[in-house]
Amino acid sequence: MQSNDFICGRQPVLEAIKAGQRPLHKIWIQEGTGGEITREIERLARTKGIPVEWAKREHLDKRVQGHHQGVVAQASAAAFLELDDFIRSLGTVPTEQSIVVVALDEIQDPHNIGAILRSGGFFGVSAAIIPRWRSAPVGETAARVSSGAIEHIPLIRVRNLAESVNDLKETGFEVIGADMEGSSIREHQPGNRSAIVFGSEGKGLRRLVRDRCDKLLKIPGQGPVASLNVSAAAAIFLYEFCRRSSTGTIGPMRRWTDGPASSEA
Amino acid sequence: MQSNDFICGRQPVLEAIKAGQRPLHKIWIQEGTGGEITREIERLARTKGIPVEWAKREHLDKRVQGHHQGVVAQASAAAFLELDDFIRSLGTVPTEQSIVVVALDEIQDPHNIGAILRSGGFFGVSAAIIPRWRSAPVGETAARVSSGAIEHIPLIRVRNLAESVNDLKETGFEVIGADMEGSSIREHQPGNRSAIVFGSEGKGLRRLVRDRCDKLLKIPGQGPVASLNVSAAAAIFLYEFCRRSSTGTIGPMRRWTDGPASSEA
Repeated sequence: MQSNDFICGRQPVLEAIKAGQRPLHKIWIQEGTGGEITREIERLARTKGIPVEWAKREHLDKRVQGHHQGVVAQASAAAFLELDDFIRSLGTVPTEQSIVVVALDEIQDPHNIGAILRSGGFFGVSAAIIPRWRSAPVGETAARVSSGAIEHIPLIRVRNLAESVNDLKETGFEVIGADMEGSSIREHQPGNRSAIVFGSEGKGLRRLVRDRCDKLLKIPGQGPVASLNVSAAAAIFLYEFCRRSSTGTIGPMRRWTDGPASSEA
Repeated sequence: MQSNDFICGRQPVLEAIKAGQRPLHKIWIQEGTGGEITREIERLARTKGIPVEWAKREHLDKRVQGHHQGVVAQASAAAFLELDDFIRSLGTVPTEQSIVVVALDEIQDPHNIGAILRSGGFFGVSAAIIPRWRSAPVGETAARVSSGAIEHIPLIRVRNLAESVNDLKETGFEVIGADMEGSSIREHQPGNRSAIVFGSEGKGLRRLVRDRCDKLLKIPGQGPVASLNVSAAAAIFLYEFCRRSSTGTIGPMRRWTDGPASSEA
C-alpha cells in the first residue's frame, strides 16, 4: 500500500512520536532490541496510546525494505490539518462557490470511513472532519476503500466535534445533521457553505453534536428496511447537495499544500 | 445467522441437491462417513459445482443442533424465484404504481450485493435480479450486510441477464444501465416500470447487457475521484428514482408468498 507509510529506525520513529503531526497506528520493536532510545520510544508510545508490538526480525523485514534498526512505525495514510487552518484557507474561496464539508461522528467501521471519503472525492467535498477519539482509524483499510480519495481530501482531526460544529457555524457554515428524526432532504435548499455530520452506525449522532446542528435532515424511504448504511446515506446527501447547489456542483476541491500539519509540506 | 439455513441429514441434503430450488453453498461430510447415499451426495455435489468438505464430527456439531447423520449442507440465505413468475405477479399491480427492480451484472463483492439489497429494502424495490453465474453468492456476508433486506426482497436468479433485459423490456419495463458514458441521471424522468442494471466493480456493464438497455445514465461528479463504489451509486439511483417517481415513492414491496421457487411455499 503506497498510501500507508512506514517509518524506519529508532531516531526517525522517536521524532515522529514527538512531532505528532501524523497519527501513528502501531510500532513494532524487534525482540531483543535494547538501548536508551528504544526504551524511550516504548515509554512515549504507551503515554500516547500507540500500540507497541514486540516481533521477530523477519516480521519487521517483511514490512519494510532497508535498514530499520529493530524499530518500525506505521503512520496514518493521511495528512491531517487543523480546523483553524482550513477555515482560514476559505478566505480565498469566492462566496458564490458551493462548499461542502463532511464530519464523521464516531464512525466505527473503517470501510464506512473509506466509502464516505470515496464518495466525497467523487463529488468534490472540501474537507472531512474526523474526531481524534472513538472513530475508526484512517488506516490501510479506509485508504484502500477510499480509492485514492484519501490522497485528495484534506482531513481535519478534531478533539471535540461539538465544539467544531460551533466553529463552523461561526464561520458561516450551515451545519446539517443526518438524522432519521429530521425533515426530508428533498425539501432542503442548501446554501453555499454546508457541513454535513454523519453519526455512528448503530447509534447515529450523539446528542451533544445533534443539538448544535442548524438542521436535521433525513432521507425518506418506504421500504421494510428501517435504515440506510451510513456510507449509502452519505452518498445520497452529497449527490443531493451537489445537485441542488446554486452552481450544480461543489468544490472544486483543492489540495491542501501549505498547511502546517501536511505531510507534503 | 438465522438468515442462513443448514440442511441436516443424508436424505434431506440429497433431496436439496436434486431439487435445486435454493442454491447450496457448501456441504460438510463427517470424516469416516460412508454408505451409498453419502457417495451419491458427493458425486452429485461435484457435478453441480457445490464445494464438499470433509470435516470432524465436532465441526458439524458446532454448526447445527440435533442429529445430522454426518452430512450438513448450507443453503443460500435467500429464496429465489423465477423471472417469469415475478413478471406474472405484476399483473395485479396498478399501473400508476411505480415499480423499480435492480439487476446486478456480475457484482463480485458480497458486501456490495448486501449493501445494494439494504438500500433496495430501504427504498422499496420490488425485486433484485442476480445472475446465477459469476456473481458473488448471496450468502452469509451479503445477508448480514443487507441488514434483513434479504428476507424481504424477492431475489430472481437468471441464467442470462441479457435475455432477462429483453424479457423486462417486453413487459413494459424501461431498462436503465448505470454507466459513466450515459447521460445525467439529473435529467431523467422515470416511468412507472424501471429496471436499473449495475455492472461489476472493475469493469462496469458487460457490452452484451449494456447494448440492450433502453438508456444509460450516469451520476455526474466533479471531484478528483473518477468513480463511485457500485453500492453508493445504487443508493443514489434508488433515491433519485424514488424522488422523481410520479408518487414520490416506489413499491410497496410485497413479500413473494406463492412462487414455486420460494422456500416459504
